[in-house]
Amino acid sequence: MTTVVKLGGSVITDKDTPETVDRATLDRAATALSKSDDRLIVVHGAGSFGHHHASEYGVSTTDGTHDDEAIRAIHGSMKRLNDAVVDSLAEAGLPAVPVHPLSAASRSPEGELSFPAVSVETMLEEEFVPVLHGDVIAHERSGATILSGDEVVVSLATALDADHVGLCSAARGVYDEEGAVIDRIERFGDVAEAVGGSDATDVTGGMAGKVRALLALDAPAHVFDIDGLEAFVAGGTPGTKIE
Amino acid sequence: MTTVVKLGGSVITDKDTPETVDRATLDRAATALSKSDDRLIVVHGAGSFGHHHASEYGVSTTDGTHDDEAIRAIHGSMKRLNDAVVDSLAEAGLPAVPVHPLSAASRSPEGELSFPAVSVETMLEEEFVPVLHGDVIAHERSGATILSGDEVVVSLATALDADHVGLCSAARGVYDEEGAVIDRIERFGDVAEAVGGSDATDVTGGMAGKVRALLALDAPAHVFDIDGLEAFVAGGTPGTKIE
Repeated sequence: MTTVVKLGGSVITDKDTPETVDRATLDRAATALSKSDDRLIVVHGAGSFGHHHASEYGVSTTDGTHDDEAIRAIHGSMKRLNDAVVDSLAEAGLPAVPVHPLSAASRSPEGELSFPAVSVETMLEEEFVPVLHGDVIAHERSGATILSGDEVVVSLATALDADHVGLCSAARGVYDEEGAVIDRIERFGDVAEAVGGSDATDVTGGMAGKVRALLALDAPAHVFDIDGLEAFVAGGTPGTKIE
Repeated sequence: MTTVVKLGGSVITDKDTPETVDRATLDRAATALSKSDDRLIVVHGAGSFGHHHASEYGVSTTDGTHDDEAIRAIHGSMKRLNDAVVDSLAEAGLPAVPVHPLSAASRSPEGELSFPAVSVETMLEEEFVPVLHGDVIAHERSGATILSGDEVVVSLATALDADHVGLCSAARGVYDEEGAVIDRIERFGDVAEAVGGSDATDVTGGMAGKVRALLALDAPAHVFDIDGLEAFVAGGTPGTKIE
């Protein structure tokens, strides 16, 4: 069984204070993940790390930059967060190994992602746990643009033919218009109204983007919060199931 | 024109003191490189950074490890050196962007290297200067092994169809048995005796390995020391030419 789990940036960082890890929640997530028997790929978002720099330099998933300083600032910030995540997973007993998308992925002029998965695949075969993250990557004719953690999840889940995908977010699941968690989503149209108002401060798209991306996957995906992570790892169905 | 330049670990670090950058020489190299008009790919070796950890954990280009802590230690050390190199190049005015081989490359059970170059290629098209390094990478059935900086040079020079390759080393070139710099090498057999006694403390093979790898390239390669770097960048032929 191959499982891709994303730890949302707002789960593992203090989103209001620049470059601050929420160590307690990160360690709790690491402990939950350490109980998995699957081949695990961990992806994390930016939270108070990358977004800050991305906004400062005006870079998004579609607005590029040719400013190499911007790339170094965004990427450097994400690597600092990645260090913390890798360390926490390693302390929990997982054989965590860092993987930085800037080193492997790029976009075509039309924004299509090319992300060769050969290194991640070999790591999994050798029983390591690759730990990836949202990043900034080279983008043909646009310099460099943001690669969201959700895009990394979708790209790897597809390339590695994952059996399960889990998104551990700040929300307990995808909410309907009354604020109740939707059990199951099969079509974007059914929830477009409810998720349309995505968080404008999130350069990578918020819940609407997540739902769209997860619907495109072959594997079933689950959106849940940190309280649901243990259940997900144990094979349960916390939060919202998207398939 | 596409040029791959390697800065040897013994050139840019103090090889006798663990994790010590030779800042003056590194900055001198960066200044020389900043005068290039070519599409530039910079690769650096380990010097007093990675080798130390690689020896400690008994990892080489052929002896693998399944110890994830070893991977994190070797890779982390190489990233610290890469930070210094990227910073120095950026200060000299080059649009330097870090690329970490562990994130992209891996080896087959037989040790054959697979290193997708799509990210580096897009960086070059967008006029960034990718800065790579020797690293530890996943190796099917062996866990992880060392990827030498020289292997990175050969792999990228081939994938990107480079026009020139330059190796800036501690030596002024490849020496003959009397210690004089050989002008030109066309066959390994001609210099096997002279380069056979490679430095045993260098886990990545020393001069014999370099000569073998460079002879396998389509592009002409030059081996020179820091005094020859400016001449190489200007299109000259310092040190030893290998083709």
